[in-house]
Amino acid sequence: MNDRIFNFGAGPGVLPEPVLHAAQRDLWNVASSGIGIAEHSHRGKVFDAIIGDAERECRELGGIGDDYEVLFLQGGASLQFAMVPMNFLPEGGTADYIVTGVWSEKAVKEASLFGAVHEAGSSKDRNHCYIPAPDAIRYSASPAYVHFTSNNTIYGTQWRTEPVPPAGVPLICDASSDIFSRPIDISRYGLIYAGAQKNLGPSGVTLVIIRKDLVEKGPRTLPTMLQYRTFAKEKSLYNTPPTFGVYMMGQVFRWIRQQGGLAAMAEINEEKARILYDYLDGSRIFRGTADPEARSRMNVCFRATSEDLEKAFLAEAARRGFEGLKGHRAIGGIRASIYNAMPRSGCEALVAFMREFEKANSGG
Amino acid sequence: MNDRIFNFGAGPGVLPEPVLHAAQRDLWNVASSGIGIAEHSHRGKVFDAIIGDAERECRELGGIGDDYEVLFLQGGASLQFAMVPMNFLPEGGTADYIVTGVWSEKAVKEASLFGAVHEAGSSKDRNHCYIPAPDAIRYSASPAYVHFTSNNTIYGTQWRTEPVPPAGVPLICDASSDIFSRPIDISRYGLIYAGAQKNLGPSGVTLVIIRKDLVEKGPRTLPTMLQYRTFAKEKSLYNTPPTFGVYMMGQVFRWIRQQGGLAAMAEINEEKARILYDYLDGSRIFRGTADPEARSRMNVCFRATSEDLEKAFLAEAARRGFEGLKGHRAIGGIRASIYNAMPRSGCEALVAFMREFEKANSGG
Repeated sequence: MNDRIFNFGAGPGVLPEPVLHAAQRDLWNVASSGIGIAEHSHRGKVFDAIIGDAERECRELGGIGDDYEVLFLQGGASLQFAMVPMNFLPEGGTADYIVTGVWSEKAVKEASLFGAVHEAGSSKDRNHCYIPAPDAIRYSASPAYVHFTSNNTIYGTQWRTEPVPPAGVPLICDASSDIFSRPIDISRYGLIYAGAQKNLGPSGVTLVIIRKDLVEKGPRTLPTMLQYRTFAKEKSLYNTPPTFGVYMMGQVFRWIRQQGGLAAMAEINEEKARILYDYLDGSRIFRGTADPEARSRMNVCFRATSEDLEKAFLAEAARRGFEGLKGHRAIGGIRASIYNAMPRSGCEALVAFMREFEKANSGG
Repeated sequence: MNDRIFNFGAGPGVLPEPVLHAAQRDLWNVASSGIGIAEHSHRGKVFDAIIGDAERECRELGGIGDDYEVLFLQGGASLQFAMVPMNFLPEGGTADYIVTGVWSEKAVKEASLFGAVHEAGSSKDRNHCYIPAPDAIRYSASPAYVHFTSNNTIYGTQWRTEPVPPAGVPLICDASSDIFSRPIDISRYGLIYAGAQKNLGPSGVTLVIIRKDLVEKGPRTLPTMLQYRTFAKEKSLYNTPPTFGVYMMGQVFRWIRQQGGLAAMAEINEEKARILYDYLDGSRIFRGTADPEARSRMNVCFRATSEDLEKAFLAEAARRGFEGLKGHRAIGGIRASIYNAMPRSGCEALVAFMREFEKANSGG
């Protein structure tokens, strides 16, 4: 029997149930060691195998070669907002940011503490309901790097493909909310970072994939914990890493592989999103808020014909066991987050409920 | 039946078994919400209650009043080594550090990036086997703060009571390895920080207890995630906190309260340590390495009469299900870490085994 409900929350989000079962077992006694996963020394053999497996699974899934480091950090994307410019924005340099929402803006704010920021593109003019077209992006003369946010949880938009920076300029991406939801061409990136809590695991562990030539760019006068080289040199074990989070991430990577890997995951995610968008496009009381060509496969944002109707919908949804559907406090409305671990049946059940709600509330 | 062994590892260390059982249950479905603890939004009602409970339990245990903030951060003590000087060591100022081991030295290294460090005391002359006496500590003329490490895991030493800084100077403590192992007089401190992974929970969450007047001292030009005010203002929810870690910490606080609180915990810990030290003091093949008056109640460090005998002991101990006894790689030897969650029966079983080993190996 399953006493769990459908969790459409934007993050921390739903995790795969087989991963939860494994974690329940391993918290008590992992790998027949007589010690739980959260109690093992990060310098012992058991955890060594766990973090090694997590890295290997990550590399296999993402097709990440030896020219990149795979690192496990703490502090979430919010700490990366600062670490990126601290390491890569030199005195007198300029960094280019493409602003597609609140999270991009926060990244800009931190970078501005360390140097000049050039806004190479923005979707602010229409409240971030779209992704800037390639010909609307204007890079500065010689950016230290180009930063973008691949999926915008609040507005429900997602880049279809990466922006193309000027030749030789590293592309840096906050992929917190869509990492490993689809195949990735790692060779296009200098650095990708992602807080785990949407597609990869519990909050408290940050995945950083960094091209090796960038590892040594940061000034050695930075605090040790804010230099990427510290984590690269010590294989994420300079200090005690978030061991349970790393373990969980490894379990989630394995689960994604068992689903067929990133290409299969992308197909499943496309289908899940289509179920929702198709319904929304035909609805008389709901409408999606993102431009169709920018629609996110991770966060489906929509409004009802009135705020009262939205309130009634959210209340009824909660009663029916659909949780986390309230839109972000910054913009309101309704949002269904359908990360990797949300099963197709969750999307189908939600649409069935929405149809029923529409019938009862469309007055016709 | 219990398939677990005795884990004497120095950290991440053993956790209370009732806490592990609760976590096993709550990973699947916490508070009958139909959603696991690692999957709940940090902005929802369920997690709100969890972090609120954790803070309340912490305040009750430690007797921490409204003049202090109780914060949950990431990055471990190693990030605090940098955050402390970044926030409190002004341009041209001097910070005083009492150096009692590798961890103090690491704290000094990070502080040196930001200003002048005065070594107010040190135990380095005898490889950190003691705690500097009060009259051996020499503060600088006007320190911004005084920093010390309350327990030194590597050498097995522990302060009996806090150093007394000059009037008006904040005392800052890295209490990672003995926090809440005994009562604490919070009024003596400006700031206490502790990585959770020894006495408080899994790695990946850092407890920071900070006097309110210090919260606003940090320059506003610091990265947002490195200002204490960010966490104080947003009740540790500026960005997604390590939700599972905060939950576990709350569970551990409750467990400590159920043991009778910090005074009872101290008695239990004294007794556990005495069982080991009493045996060591009478042993013909083992000897404790710390000066008796500086002996840690958390990490009991000792040597055997030869390195070969140490190797034989560690190998045989592992076979008998005593794990994590190897001394820190910096100094070798043997170390039994007996944090709050190590039961008295673990110490008794270890001593029984050591007696047996001594009998078989003392040639007499």
